[in-house]
Amino acid sequence: MHIKECIVSAPGKAILHGEHAVVHGKMALAVSLNLRTYLQLQATFTSKVCINLPNINAFLSWDVTVLNQLVPDSEADLRNMDELDIELVRRLRDFVGIPNGALDTRSMAILAFLYIYISIFAGSGELPSLTVSVWSELPTGAGLGSSSAYSVCLAAALLSASGTIPSPLSDQENTARWGVAEMELINRFAFQGERIIHGNPSGVDNAVGTWGGILRYHSGKITPLSRVPMLRILLTNTKVPRSTKVLVAGVKDKMNKFPSIINPVLDSVDAISCTCEQTLSEMTSDSPTPEHYDILEELIDINQHHLNVMGVGHPALDNLCRVTLARGLHSKLTGAGGGGCAITLLRPGFYPLASLTVRFLFISAIFLW
Amino acid sequence: MHIKECIVSAPGKAILHGEHAVVHGKMALAVSLNLRTYLQLQATFTSKVCINLPNINAFLSWDVTVLNQLVPDSEADLRNMDELDIELVRRLRDFVGIPNGALDTRSMAILAFLYIYISIFAGSGELPSLTVSVWSELPTGAGLGSSSAYSVCLAAALLSASGTIPSPLSDQENTARWGVAEMELINRFAFQGERIIHGNPSGVDNAVGTWGGILRYHSGKITPLSRVPMLRILLTNTKVPRSTKVLVAGVKDKMNKFPSIINPVLDSVDAISCTCEQTLSEMTSDSPTPEHYDILEELIDINQHHLNVMGVGHPALDNLCRVTLARGLHSKLTGAGGGGCAITLLRPGFYPLASLTVRFLFISAIFLW
Repeated sequence: MHIKECIVSAPGKAILHGEHAVVHGKMALAVSLNLRTYLQLQATFTSKVCINLPNINAFLSWDVTVLNQLVPDSEADLRNMDELDIELVRRLRDFVGIPNGALDTRSMAILAFLYIYISIFAGSGELPSLTVSVWSELPTGAGLGSSSAYSVCLAAALLSASGTIPSPLSDQENTARWGVAEMELINRFAFQGERIIHGNPSGVDNAVGTWGGILRYHSGKITPLSRVPMLRILLTNTKVPRSTKVLVAGVKDKMNKFPSIINPVLDSVDAISCTCEQTLSEMTSDSPTPEHYDILEELIDINQHHLNVMGVGHPALDNLCRVTLARGLHSKLTGAGGGGCAITLLRPGFYPLASLTVRFLFISAIFLW
Repeated sequence: MHIKECIVSAPGKAILHGEHAVVHGKMALAVSLNLRTYLQLQATFTSKVCINLPNINAFLSWDVTVLNQLVPDSEADLRNMDELDIELVRRLRDFVGIPNGALDTRSMAILAFLYIYISIFAGSGELPSLTVSVWSELPTGAGLGSSSAYSVCLAAALLSASGTIPSPLSDQENTARWGVAEMELINRFAFQGERIIHGNPSGVDNAVGTWGGILRYHSGKITPLSRVPMLRILLTNTKVPRSTKVLVAGVKDKMNKFPSIINPVLDSVDAISCTCEQTLSEMTSDSPTPEHYDILEELIDINQHHLNVMGVGHPALDNLCRVTLARGLHSKLTGAGGGGCAITLLRPGFYPLASLTVRFLFISAIFLW
């Protein structure tokens, strides 16, 4: 073990524009939030690997010697980061006792941890004993990237503990970011965690968790925006449960039913993302003006209508948009829709009434204590 | 005078799909309503021309001899139905005492009547004495084609009285429609009335008033649909006043501001009108099915979102959509928006609660008693 203890954190994410359209080759913009997931890793001499996930009430430990038996003989599949080592996933499922098809948060969190842990330490001869504790400000299953922030933290801390990446901390600092090369490696391992949890993720969530700021996602290509303004976003969780899979399928059905009606709407969403990116860029090169906010608000309103056209709205979201608009605020759903979360743009200097029960969220980036 | 008395009636109209998009070269569908305007014409020997418009409390009469002095020496301008005889309009304004720029309903109704009356009888040597009385089920200024129904009735009755078109009534009938040639002439004279009242109308309103049924309007070309189903439409007047001119300009501004975002929305509206026309056609060739109504309802919902994107919605319209949706009914604004009227599609066999205070409107066509 190269470190005794470290704490890493990674931010959650929200989709600013382009949800659903992104599935059909359009551009999306994802922003990192100032709601974060924190991970503390401690090297131990207990010959045990422990994981504590107080948010989901999961506290588990395994003997290192038993886990050692699960390490693949050949590391070839583990080193191929373009896909999962399916055999290792199967063995881990059997070992932990997760039935095939089980997708609950607890099972997925344990599986992702063990997979990343074994992937990273498989080449070092012996698996180390350590304790990992994770806590988060992010609700699970709300489309805010709680799983990706978790995977990013796991990858960063375990890569750091293995010595694969050096600590970015200098003597004078107690907080630092890694360099580009290390971030890229963290992101690749985090993506493996996301694959375990979500099956076929786009990779945008773990990229936001790793890089922070704002990312453009287009046809599989993820590009961090070079300079981004700080946006104040009011995030509201409608707590209406929904299935992302069902919602995505519903949009596809609408496209098949009314291609000439829905395809132009996706083109319009694409143009919204482009216009938003351009406006954000202007807000960093010049100072943000009220006119910039006028545009951002108008884009939010238009996209919310488009998302309703795609059939991924919900009365709770409509209600939220109406309530915030009555206070001069503009909102849209973020992510899969059909409930879930909404974002409301707040102008500088605007403080909503306490009765709105809000959380202020800022764009921020991964950092290390 | 070729007839002693006749009663004609013409229907109002609602835009089913394509309002605003039609201004930018897209297709629109207009439907006639079973709210009608009725006109009674009586030949008299009083040497007076009288017009009674009880709906707007206007009762006027003029000496035929005085009116005769207003008839242009050359009929060339009057026979050019592609535009108004501006000199005659100016003379009529002076004669009646309507200040330049006045656009009130009463002034416009009088001006349209006198213009059509003189246009039709100018070639017959002497203007006839007659009394015209008009009453209507259509509210004025609600975008329901009250002015076009009025102009169509004036054109039909005065052309009939002048003998330019024969009476379509046979001995056995007390109600009849004119043939195509007569309808086309009625429509052209009615369009002159619309030009006086609205300045630069599209011609679709007077076409619906003349032909009834459902019309397709595309780039200045008006095509009646050959066979149309009867639709039950709940019409609600929000009574929110608005300026069509300001709303049309607002859409143009949005297009200039966000062309890549708004142009695809207009393409989508165009596709909505096409899909609606195709569905209506299927409903007449096959029997209407619940699936046809599913499509019509979905098109209404999508278009209402698009109209909101264009910025021509209003909280009163949003509220109406929400209230009707809570009863399983789908609504959209009709016409200029920003208030005005909304249409709600009713399925066969559905009777809304009395508390909704509704009017049932059916597609119908011009007829004559």
